[in-house]
Amino acid sequence: MSDHALAIGVDIGGTKIAAGAVDAAGRVLARTTRPTDPNDPNQIEAAAAEAINDLALRYPEVQSVGVAAAGFVSPDRTTMLFAPNIAWRNQPVGDKLAARTGLVVVIENDANAAAWAENRFGNGRAARNMVMLTLGTGLGGSVIADGELIRGAFGAAAELGHIKVVPGGHFCGCGQEGCLEAYASGTALARYAQQLAVANPTGAEAMLAAAGGEPLDGSHVTAAARQGDPTAIKVLERFGTYLGLGMAVMAAVVDPGVFVIGGGITEAAGDLIVPAAAEAFLNKLSGRGFRGEAEIRTAALGNEAGLIGAADLARHT
Amino acid sequence: MSDHALAIGVDIGGTKIAAGAVDAAGRVLARTTRPTDPNDPNQIEAAAAEAINDLALRYPEVQSVGVAAAGFVSPDRTTMLFAPNIAWRNQPVGDKLAARTGLVVVIENDANAAAWAENRFGNGRAARNMVMLTLGTGLGGSVIADGELIRGAFGAAAELGHIKVVPGGHFCGCGQEGCLEAYASGTALARYAQQLAVANPTGAEAMLAAAGGEPLDGSHVTAAARQGDPTAIKVLERFGTYLGLGMAVMAAVVDPGVFVIGGGITEAAGDLIVPAAAEAFLNKLSGRGFRGEAEIRTAALGNEAGLIGAADLARHT
Amino acid sequence: MSDHALAIGVDIGGTKIAAGAVDAAGRVLARTTRPTDPNDPNQIEAAAAEAINDLALRYPEVQSVGVAAAGFVSPDRTTMLFAPNIAWRNQPVGDKLAARTGLVVVIENDANAAAWAENRFGNGRAARNMVMLTLGTGLGGSVIADGELIRGAFGAAAELGHIKVVPGGHFCGCGQEGCLEAYASGTALARYAQQLAVANPTGAEAMLAAAGGEPLDGSHVTAAARQGDPTAIKVLERFGTYLGLGMAVMAAVVDPGVFVIGGGITEAAGDLIVPAAAEAFLNKLSGRGFRGEAEIRTAALGNEAGLIGAADLARHT
Amino acid sequence: MSDHALAIGVDIGGTKIAAGAVDAAGRVLARTTRPTDPNDPNQIEAAAAEAINDLALRYPEVQSVGVAAAGFVSPDRTTMLFAPNIAWRNQPVGDKLAARTGLVVVIENDANAAAWAENRFGNGRAARNMVMLTLGTGLGGSVIADGELIRGAFGAAAELGHIKVVPGGHFCGCGQEGCLEAYASGTALARYAQQLAVANPTGAEAMLAAAGGEPLDGSHVTAAARQGDPTAIKVLERFGTYLGLGMAVMAAVVDPGVFVIGGGITEAAGDLIVPAAAEAFLNKLSGRGFRGEAEIRTAALGNEAGLIGAADLARHT
Repeated sequence: MSDHALAIGVDIGGTKIAAGAVDAAGRVLARTTRPTDPNDPNQIEAAAAEAINDLALRYPEVQSVGVAAAGFVSPDRTTMLFAPNIAWRNQPVGDKLAARTGLVVVIENDANAAAWAENRFGNGRAARNMVMLTLGTGLGGSVIADGELIRGAFGAAAELGHIKVVPGGHFCGCGQEGCLEAYASGTALARYAQQLAVANPTGAEAMLAAAGGEPLDGSHVTAAARQGDPTAIKVLERFGTYLGLGMAVMAAVVDPGVFVIGGGITEAAGDLIVPAAAEAFLNKLSGRGFRGEAEIRTAALGNEAGLIGAADLARHT
Repeated sequence: MSDHALAIGVDIGGTKIAAGAVDAAGRVLARTTRPTDPNDPNQIEAAAAEAINDLALRYPEVQSVGVAAAGFVSPDRTTMLFAPNIAWRNQPVGDKLAARTGLVVVIENDANAAAWAENRFGNGRAARNMVMLTLGTGLGGSVIADGELIRGAFGAAAELGHIKVVPGGHFCGCGQEGCLEAYASGTALARYAQQLAVANPTGAEAMLAAAGGEPLDGSHVTAAARQGDPTAIKVLERFGTYLGLGMAVMAAVVDPGVFVIGGGITEAAGDLIVPAAAEAFLNKLSGRGFRGEAEIRTAALGNEAGLIGAADLARHT
Repeated sequence: MSDHALAIGVDIGGTKIAAGAVDAAGRVLARTTRPTDPNDPNQIEAAAAEAINDLALRYPEVQSVGVAAAGFVSPDRTTMLFAPNIAWRNQPVGDKLAARTGLVVVIENDANAAAWAENRFGNGRAARNMVMLTLGTGLGGSVIADGELIRGAFGAAAELGHIKVVPGGHFCGCGQEGCLEAYASGTALARYAQQLAVANPTGAEAMLAAAGGEPLDGSHVTAAARQGDPTAIKVLERFGTYLGLGMAVMAAVVDPGVFVIGGGITEAAGDLIVPAAAEAFLNKLSGRGFRGEAEIRTAALGNEAGLIGAADLARHT
Repeated sequence: MSDHALAIGVDIGGTKIAAGAVDAAGRVLARTTRPTDPNDPNQIEAAAAEAINDLALRYPEVQSVGVAAAGFVSPDRTTMLFAPNIAWRNQPVGDKLAARTGLVVVIENDANAAAWAENRFGNGRAARNMVMLTLGTGLGGSVIADGELIRGAFGAAAELGHIKVVPGGHFCGCGQEGCLEAYASGTALARYAQQLAVANPTGAEAMLAAAGGEPLDGSHVTAAARQGDPTAIKVLERFGTYLGLGMAVMAAVVDPGVFVIGGGITEAAGDLIVPAAAEAFLNKLSGRGFRGEAEIRTAALGNEAGLIGAADLARHT
């Protein structure tokens, strides 16, 4: 256990590394970034080590480093078993970075890291039971039960985007049908808008105009909705309605006191999605009147949640 | 903490109380039962106290008592907030029994107690992450994550029968549509067989014969299936297929290493339901090849799981 | 062919017979009614003959009689093969009434008769391709293609309430799952409101108040909606949304130019249901932009549509 | 009406024109084909005229020509309003070919023409109420009611592939969700097999081996099923199960006495699809016991059904 005031958090994404020195209150005292080549694990490790050493030089009292990345992490949190966006397969990222920096390095799934940050310092503060949902290209999730991150028997817990919500429903990138992510994610939004442009070109005019000839994606839906286009608004409400259905399923399994909803799509269109999600959540929740009802909040920490949470998790290891 | 070798476990059902003295290996050394009147909380408490005192007299070293009952339990495990089958609303059952017996009394949801017993002494032994499913009139569930029972923010976690699996699907006793319990429970089995007798009376002949003029229920489906009736076998496989779909959803949330399936319907027809559930579970599981796959086992401890688990939970309090 | 100006139409229901003398413009010149005992076919036939003879005495030029009743009619239109509400099984109703009255008697399914009347004299006038939907306790339907009633190979065409719209969906009185009638009928409305009262008692308060202690049925939903209750309004919109989905399916099969929507529920709440149905119909219609879109109208002839249509069909036999 | 013994039938596809001289018994006495360029309407018309004139020279008694093509046909059957595979929009194909050949030319939708041929000369012979389903890249359909082709108010009847069978289900080429064609067509088969290869690569091995590195399509599924691969067999049964569900919907609307199932996929794998379709059809049919049940047959006339039917329809014009 190295419960020092300062730890370093690193968030390794497909295109860049963001690192920061984070204090015990979750404040980022200093930041540095490096570009990454997702196909070159060596380059990524070198760049991450460089960013860590850069910060460690400035804050020599730092002893531990938390690294957040998308993918499956080994139970001892030293190794990336599989990463969707980086060419890591059973890569001992933690040991390698420890060797390059002389510090204790702990790896954490990025969704878990972000949820932890929101739970400790953000809008999930003080919730012992919390679910975080990150609405981006996909739908990422994390579950905190009785104050602890749920990791599962195989490190595959909280794959909340792969809750099945529609039998025989839309195909998902995972190969299955009817996953929540196929209804409530950036990819789903784009696909649905594209289909709508075929089914009802007149109704899709505002979205198509926002796209200006480019393939319709989620940002065009949001843009058209911002201008009051009723079709785009309905598309986002539909997103929210499926999200709320998924949240009712999550509540049936882990009964959170708080849902924290973040991610790029939430930042762009949370005001259009979250109310529909909240309504559907309550409409689909079993046992109303005999149970408390979770609060639904948007995330507070934005892009830095991953590195803040990773730092905090490392500090408590 | 009273970690003595012996504790008393009590399982309070709608029609009887079963109690036993349970040792640290989960063995039931002595048993006693009492009938109950579900509409008379005083009678139930008196009968439970009597059963406890009876066993305590024989095993004076006992210091703690665990009580399992269906319903929502307060976070401090002293009070039944709501019970579906007994007239308890915010009833301080633990304190009342403590006063009547002079022992430490802890209340636990019966599904949680049974899951705990299977996890410690039964077929979920050594699984740090486990889901238990109890197939009876309804579908009860329990989740153990990293060795701990998941209770949720409002004591309503693991309401696994209320995972929504079919949008716009069958009505559930909870008022919602498409709950897993409406597809995979004794009630669902009866309802489906009754409908089938209308839709296709010829196909339902063997089940109707098994019912002998009584309203079709799950036992008639099982009986006809036992005699090789292809329709009844398909009805049970359909039950299993929906169960497996639900299990894939549970895996997406809490990623258990083991599913333990118990309850009266499992005892009667597990060999017809569980293989279909296992097949559907794997067919619907996202991420195969990148993750471990939970084992699926039937329960080992039968009806006594509740009192064994309650005793063990009390012992560790 | 007896194409006289006047014919008699008879509508035999479960509780009464309504008969009228109908001219070639569909006007009812005279009316008479008789009570019926649904369990006594002899009484029904005697009462129907009495009503016919009563009118025939007043209009001796009448030569043909059309009889509308719910159920399956033989292809030669002389016999009721099966009636849901009357104890008729292979009953030669036409021959019996001909013998009692000395007139030519033709039997017609009541939904077909009503559709024919709307098509000839009501709001489907001049539509060579039309679908009629009757929203009552169940959902009845009729299809007119190229000016002719579609009866099907077994007299079972236009069972539009039994279009399957939700796989694994609500049970239907026919024993199947997911029939349109289980989502868009008086029975469905009542059942859904009852469930809602369990799932969300607070939301259902206005409907429960309208019911005043009686079991919730469709009329209470309508009453609450009339007073502006948002839950009741949503329940009726949901009814309409499923109806519109079903209409898109009908359009994919028979491509009507006009939908005529009638029945008691339409009279009570058509203004709340039909707009939602129209929106869903267009949203779900394949091929928009490459095909015409059916008009959606409410029925004009009310309860007398059955006898008017039966008379007209008899006149043209 | 030109009811001569001989007529010419022409089937215009995306890659070739097939024409034949057809006698009153539906026999093709002579054949000729021409390649087509789908992007050049002039070339297509020239080639069709050439094929017609070639046959007319050999059979000078011919007076009428029927032309079958995919797409929407005007009610007067002279004009292609829209063709999915050829650059025709409001193209007066009939008049142009009449001008080039001096014969009476009638246009017919190709699915209707094929259904007509099966109904007059093939496996739907003598069925006054029949549905034909053509399983190819898409799912084409045609309805014959009381001996007449159903065309609908806008020429868009019998778009049976666009019956909605799964709310929120797979996207269809038409822009909608849950169309039957998205579950029961060559495109659906390919898509489903591709997804399965992601979800369960081990299970998909035999299909992938059949594909030999090419993108998985329906033919690889069929090939693997032919070799006994259980996954491929299940994929085809699933196809059949959805088809049967769709057929139950069709029966609820038009109540055919016979379904005739044809098309390339039926030829390749009908023995694997049709039994599953028949089982599902009966399982989903409302009113069993009170109604006849349609026979299900495979088509008899293969690729020539379109030109045979077009010729016969022209002969009767």
